Amino acid sequence: MKNKKQILANRNASELRQDLITGDWVVIATARAKRLDDYKKQREISTTSVEECVFCDPEKSGQEPDVLIYKDHSNRWSLRVFPNKYPAFSKAQSAREWTEGPYFAMNASGYHEIVVTRNHYLDLAQLDPLEVAEVIDAYQDRYLSLMNKKHINYINIFQNHGKEAGASVSHPHSQIIAIPVISPGLKLELNGAQSYWKANKKCVYCIILEWELSHKKRLLFENDSFAVFCPFSSRVAFEVWVVPKKHRPYFERITNEEKIDLGEALGNALRSIHVALDDPAYNYYIHTSPCDGKDYPHYHWHIEILPHTATWAGFELSTGVEISTIRPEDAVEHLKQALYQANSNN
Amino acid sequence: MKNKKQILANRNASELRQDLITGDWVVIATARAKRLDDYKKQREISTTSVEECVFCDPEKSGQEPDVLIYKDHSNRWSLRVFPNKYPAFSKAQSAREWTEGPYFAMNASGYHEIVVTRNHYLDLAQLDPLEVAEVIDAYQDRYLSLMNKKHINYINIFQNHGKEAGASVSHPHSQIIAIPVISPGLKLELNGAQSYWKANKKCVYCIILEWELSHKKRLLFENDSFAVFCPFSSRVAFEVWVVPKKHRPYFERITNEEKIDLGEALGNALRSIHVALDDPAYNYYIHTSPCDGKDYPHYHWHIEILPHTATWAGFELSTGVEISTIRPEDAVEHLKQALYQANSNN
Repeated sequence: MKNKKQILANRNASELRQDLITGDWVVIATARAKRLDDYKKQREISTTSVEECVFCDPEKSGQEPDVLIYKDHSNRWSLRVFPNKYPAFSKAQSAREWTEGPYFAMNASGYHEIVVTRNHYLDLAQLDPLEVAEVIDAYQDRYLSLMNKKHINYINIFQNHGKEAGASVSHPHSQIIAIPVISPGLKLELNGAQSYWKANKKCVYCIILEWELSHKKRLLFENDSFAVFCPFSSRVAFEVWVVPKKHRPYFERITNEEKIDLGEALGNALRSIHVALDDPAYNYYIHTSPCDGKDYPHYHWHIEILPHTATWAGFELSTGVEISTIRPEDAVEHLKQALYQANSNN
Repeated sequence: MKNKKQILANRNASELRQDLITGDWVVIATARAKRLDDYKKQREISTTSVEECVFCDPEKSGQEPDVLIYKDHSNRWSLRVFPNKYPAFSKAQSAREWTEGPYFAMNASGYHEIVVTRNHYLDLAQLDPLEVAEVIDAYQDRYLSLMNKKHINYINIFQNHGKEAGASVSHPHSQIIAIPVISPGLKLELNGAQSYWKANKKCVYCIILEWELSHKKRLLFENDSFAVFCPFSSRVAFEVWVVPKKHRPYFERITNEEKIDLGEALGNALRSIHVALDDPAYNYYIHTSPCDGKDYPHYHWHIEILPHTATWAGFELSTGVEISTIRPEDAVEHLKQALYQANSNN
């Protein structure tokens, strides 16, 4: 048994925590801790007006034709998906590969689409669960269309919210980028999950879920299908994961019931961050199995949410080891309080 | 033979370039290109005054006692190294390891030091080659002291310049963090270099050098000991590497002659970035072999400089694939011009 003094001393010690999936390391350096207010961004009015917005009226602003459109009961569009005008990966490109001396390169051929919800001001943190579920529905819809295209081996679905998180348009939107290579970030997780399975005959994400759901000290929210928690080796302060409770390798096979539960879970996760940190910039993305024709029975898809609470500087860029200043066990308490506050206001 | 039209078409196509060392991917998306001015940061007066500076008079501002001090011919200090007051890794901590359920963690024990040059306003881009060499000398000096400490397996040496790159104090300073684990970022390079050696019986960095020095299309500068160039798979616009020309696994074995050459090479690299992009924020760091008692004959130490020209957003965070908007072959032309301009002004 530890005594109280030891426990308190340990609370202020910096920790190196290992990512159970990838073997990566993070540092929790609470001696460098900031107050909650310091995690909140300086308010900055960078929202474009509705009149100038390029996503409020996509036809008028010369966007490419929709590849998907959802309408509400009044027959107004509620969500639309169209190709990015400035794609990082473009279907116009052939799948040419080449070498230059010792180096290897290929054309960045692929698909780059924008998913826009109608309301110019309300992001996913402010939408109701069924509206969030509609966004998930669109993700799945486009995933199923893109996954069988030629030369597409991985599909990234993500959202950048706020200028500091890289959003160049303030109107809430997600992006879908379908690419010919399996990204190194995902490969680390795929390899980690496979090694863990080989050694333990269990999915590493299922093991994490079981642990988080049993002691609940980093758990923010759960419903029938999803658990929402701050990961043990959080890379940034207030990082949150949304993970299907059952072992599910493939996002695109999500059921209608699960989509509704995910609308609630993702909405709550984003809402708690929105309230606790006063609408910070954030990125979230889906990590799911590649669509390269191989099977990935040991992987477990999930969503990672990274609020923009820190600048990754020389140490992080050099080492890949992130320094965070709050323990996830403490971060989740702020988020739980914020979620309680948000949901009791509704 | 390609005709001119084909060449022009290819210039505007996005490319996926593979990092020869790690297998990582980057995208060069010139269709999303910005003008040179767009890479320059918005000027922001965030420099602390000399009176308020915590590094101009370290004793007065209550810094820890120096672990190293260099003096000039007037017996004034020119450079000093002292422990960070808010260390991410601290020698005060024992080397305790523990588990929590399925997870593994350890105390972040180690050393975190600050290297300060005297002048409050002039960073390495503005110092003369011998002054930069003195900084390198201090890096080596501290490296040699820290490498044999208990539980230290890797030593990170880096500099954050500018607020956007994570510098919280504007007085020019570098940091040295000695840690108990070998970072995943370095491990990728160590593994890549070893695999390449096994397959080709040659160092991958030597192969890169040979190629870059022969055709020179990404070469910014060279002297007897160092080559400075924009890497083929640059992760950010205007990324620059400084690499010893001879095969050298261990930074700490740098000779006096090489230190003087590195002062010139690193100074020129930073100066060209300073002039071309109007003093942008940047990070640089040394990647060298671990000091864990093992041999790393296949690795080749070097410095990577990352100007803060982009925000890594959802795509980069999710995939580990960076999107850059200028080809390194074009970036180096801007840098060469800037270097020529800077050196002819002196």
